[in-house]
Amino acid sequence: MAPKGQKFELKTPKGTKDWEGKDMVIRDKIFSTITEVFKRHGAVTIDTPVFELKEILSGKYGEDSKLIYDLADQGGEICSLRYDLTVPFARWLAMNRDVQNIKRYHIAKVYRRDQPAMTKGRMREFYQCDFDIAGVYDPMLPDAEIVRITTEVFKGLGWNGRYTIKINHRKILDGIFEVCGVSTNKIRTISSAVDKLDKLPWEEVRKEMTVEKGLSDEIADKIGEYVVLKGQKDLLRKLQADPVLSANESMRAGMADMELLFTYLEAFNCLDNVSFDLSLARGLDYYTGLIYEVVTEGSAPLATTSTATAAPPKPSKKPSGKAGADFDEDRSSDPSVGVGSVAAGGRYDNLVGMFSGKNQIPCVGISFGVDRIFSITKARMEADKNSELVRNNEVDVYVMAFGGKGFTGLVKERLAICATLWEAGIKAEFLYKVKPKLPNQFKAAEVNGVPMAVVIGEDEVAQGKVKIKEMGLRDGHPEKDGVLVDLADIVPEIRQRLKRKANLDQLAQEAEGLRVVDGIKGEPEKVEGVPKTEKPAEESPLSQEAIGAVPTS
Amino acid sequence: MAPKGQKFELKTPKGTKDWEGKDMVIRDKIFSTITEVFKRHGAVTIDTPVFELKEILSGKYGEDSKLIYDLADQGGEICSLRYDLTVPFARWLAMNRDVQNIKRYHIAKVYRRDQPAMTKGRMREFYQCDFDIAGVYDPMLPDAEIVRITTEVFKGLGWNGRYTIKINHRKILDGIFEVCGVSTNKIRTISSAVDKLDKLPWEEVRKEMTVEKGLSDEIADKIGEYVVLKGQKDLLRKLQADPVLSANESMRAGMADMELLFTYLEAFNCLDNVSFDLSLARGLDYYTGLIYEVVTEGSAPLATTSTATAAPPKPSKKPSGKAGADFDEDRSSDPSVGVGSVAAGGRYDNLVGMFSGKNQIPCVGISFGVDRIFSITKARMEADKNSELVRNNEVDVYVMAFGGKGFTGLVKERLAICATLWEAGIKAEFLYKVKPKLPNQFKAAEVNGVPMAVVIGEDEVAQGKVKIKEMGLRDGHPEKDGVLVDLADIVPEIRQRLKRKANLDQLAQEAEGLRVVDGIKGEPEKVEGVPKTEKPAEESPLSQEAIGAVPTS
Repeated sequence: MAPKGQKFELKTPKGTKDWEGKDMVIRDKIFSTITEVFKRHGAVTIDTPVFELKEILSGKYGEDSKLIYDLADQGGEICSLRYDLTVPFARWLAMNRDVQNIKRYHIAKVYRRDQPAMTKGRMREFYQCDFDIAGVYDPMLPDAEIVRITTEVFKGLGWNGRYTIKINHRKILDGIFEVCGVSTNKIRTISSAVDKLDKLPWEEVRKEMTVEKGLSDEIADKIGEYVVLKGQKDLLRKLQADPVLSANESMRAGMADMELLFTYLEAFNCLDNVSFDLSLARGLDYYTGLIYEVVTEGSAPLATTSTATAAPPKPSKKPSGKAGADFDEDRSSDPSVGVGSVAAGGRYDNLVGMFSGKNQIPCVGISFGVDRIFSITKARMEADKNSELVRNNEVDVYVMAFGGKGFTGLVKERLAICATLWEAGIKAEFLYKVKPKLPNQFKAAEVNGVPMAVVIGEDEVAQGKVKIKEMGLRDGHPEKDGVLVDLADIVPEIRQRLKRKANLDQLAQEAEGLRVVDGIKGEPEKVEGVPKTEKPAEESPLSQEAIGAVPTS
Repeated sequence: MAPKGQKFELKTPKGTKDWEGKDMVIRDKIFSTITEVFKRHGAVTIDTPVFELKEILSGKYGEDSKLIYDLADQGGEICSLRYDLTVPFARWLAMNRDVQNIKRYHIAKVYRRDQPAMTKGRMREFYQCDFDIAGVYDPMLPDAEIVRITTEVFKGLGWNGRYTIKINHRKILDGIFEVCGVSTNKIRTISSAVDKLDKLPWEEVRKEMTVEKGLSDEIADKIGEYVVLKGQKDLLRKLQADPVLSANESMRAGMADMELLFTYLEAFNCLDNVSFDLSLARGLDYYTGLIYEVVTEGSAPLATTSTATAAPPKPSKKPSGKAGADFDEDRSSDPSVGVGSVAAGGRYDNLVGMFSGKNQIPCVGISFGVDRIFSITKARMEADKNSELVRNNEVDVYVMAFGGKGFTGLVKERLAICATLWEAGIKAEFLYKVKPKLPNQFKAAEVNGVPMAVVIGEDEVAQGKVKIKEMGLRDGHPEKDGVLVDLADIVPEIRQRLKRKANLDQLAQEAEGLRVVDGIKGEPEKVEGVPKTEKPAEESPLSQEAIGAVPTS
């Protein structure tokens, strides 16, 4: 299909895609929901360049550094595309020494040369939505607000009850490893093995610890007893009651933080979806305190629960330098690939100091994976057939003309009406034809679900009138054939009808028990007079099984 | 200042910068103003990847191709950062053969390895805001709507009367060149010389035509007579009256288009700032019909009018492969560098076919240079001292506690109040201290201009009350010391006060003759009872001199 002389395939680079149509509308809605929450908590935004000096990113990502995209050396500086939004934020803090504290959010694309699984939202170019609190503050107050923000984001997205915020503390993990007998130099690598428990069964993780990383069977089994534990304050009490653990200094520091955290989360009224989960470890080296990860149904791979005979592929372990067809291949249909976590983060008190030296600024933050949230949202909307309700554009009025023999098309009149509507801020379109056919104009309006038509003919123009026709009225409706109004009154007449229609649509959807936000249906927050159904017992956010359960609305 | 072992400078790559604070607020306001206009005209957005296969960009930008950023070859595909948003849009149209027409907008960063002049908005990473109409339609209807959109954007930005939309037509330019005797193979290169008339005096352009490009003096002088002409319909009439020009086929086609265009622009009521300018040529090869360029004060370099003894530097002509300190150097203070055009575009009917072959889709569009618009907006705001009115964040309420000896800090109570406010969608903050000092809490609120404080002490908590205090009330105001309200009523009490304050602020600013939009002051659109001052005669958008004139408000 390529024109003569064009030898390449017409496509976007592997692991990237164009965003269009309803997907864009849904994604924008996710962005605006998240931004609204961030601003509600006083955050300001900072925009850093897409590429950084290569040295800025060096030594920040451990093994994953090989996934960084470099720019070609075309003379001058050597640069790389950003891998996340956290390191650029730390670089910015180090550069701006007058800023000693800030709440900042950043919604932007990041780049990783990883093996893609497009339909699951695993891409090489993808968006992150980060919120971070930087500054020297009293312990756990910012950390608790991050949890509260997370619950507001998922509430805003209509995910009530359908997600779990796993939390853990690096000092507790380290304490457990120490108590179990892991030597100090092996703590990070054993922690990184534990981090795979959400993707691999315990036997696999145990094998990595013992066979690959040389831990004794006895130590591995001791670790195994702890990392299956999850709960809330009850788990904290259990750990506190263990005299061996309480004797460990790192453990005591971590438990003191968790004690404060639970107090603050109660005051913030946001404990419902929180799970204190000792298997949560997070891969990145730079976390120093509390860590977070949000999972939902679809986060874990389908194949996790089966007894794997062979280990699933580990994409990030392959050297990307020798990328072949295998590595570039899309793994969207691979059952061993889950969507993964939909948000993650933690406290990183030493990262800014890696750039600025003495001027250390402690930080805590979370990053929302919008592309994964999008994949899940879209799958749910398609299952509910809600995606049909999403409009492509937001046009309110289609301006049309009609006439019989000798029809001139009334183009100047249509343009003038559009200009009047635009002047008033009303979204309007017309067909770019001098003499358009009426059915073609209605078709163009219907394709985009435009709710209102303004129709003119020679008679209307002569009388200084226009006909306003609401689309899709039932037969017998008094305004089915449209109403004639003065051209001079077109703006208030249209405004009044748009408002009435919006109210009616809302009432109709509330009667169906549906909530519509900016054209996207979600679950009802609370419908007047209809009490919200209590969550069934098996849907406790704390049980791992519940993640697969989709509550009916 | 770098920590031990860190040998590189802490900065962003040359020609890029971090966006923060008030700059971000102003830039976001520009984005939302432009997006609102685009949506009002029925546009939908498409998001393409930041990098494309290198071959997609090849052969699209002529000499400027050397400014393209390439990604390093790390195995797999060879990619480049996008240079504009037009070529990715054409690639998308060619890939999506079911889409035969669309109005799309795209606001995103593009990349050019050009010599930077940061304070003038000339950067290597910068935003473009593109609006394009693709599809086979009747002539000049979409082209006219692009002009209308442009006027709405600058009206939305408060630039009434301060800009000029230059228009010209490639077929008219080509016709003039043919009539003057330029041979067909020289038309594009001579056109590219004419395009420099906004930056260079005529003598320089003439020299380029004759000495560099081998045109005879006679032909150059003939061209010189035409390219100084500007006007509106009067200029079109003058060209139509010229029998030599009218005999030229390209000229006739171009003039027929312009005739239609002026008719439509009148109907759209958007002729005021339009200048039909025969010196406008546009550099890019792919334009086939109408071309646009929007200029304002500051667009032209300061040095243009002086008799240049040496030609100003031509950054895009230098080979970027040998980029040295000279090339990377920021030219912000170079008087020979103007901000340039703030928007530009045109009709490109053959670009999609370069990808798709037979499936040709005609397009017309415009691109707004947000960074340049930002530079000008910011300079104007600083001149007017309006930038002081821009708040960093949008927080409505600061939640504080106070107490005497034995003060506990009331941290749980503060958190619970914040949770209640957030639940209601009210933007709120508190100080991350367990026992904060009251002056520190007020200071934190004042730094960000937070309008309302909620203050609690032991007494208030015991009574189930809170004190609401509006910040900055004059002495003697009945609520100067705050009002005590029931904790249970906190949400409606705060909402009512925020609404009242917003109304009062608006009244006060209207009294000053100022319009405030989202925290940014602009010129008043129309203040009730105060008729808008007529534009003074010397401010006609058609005179080149007027571009430098700033009307007082």
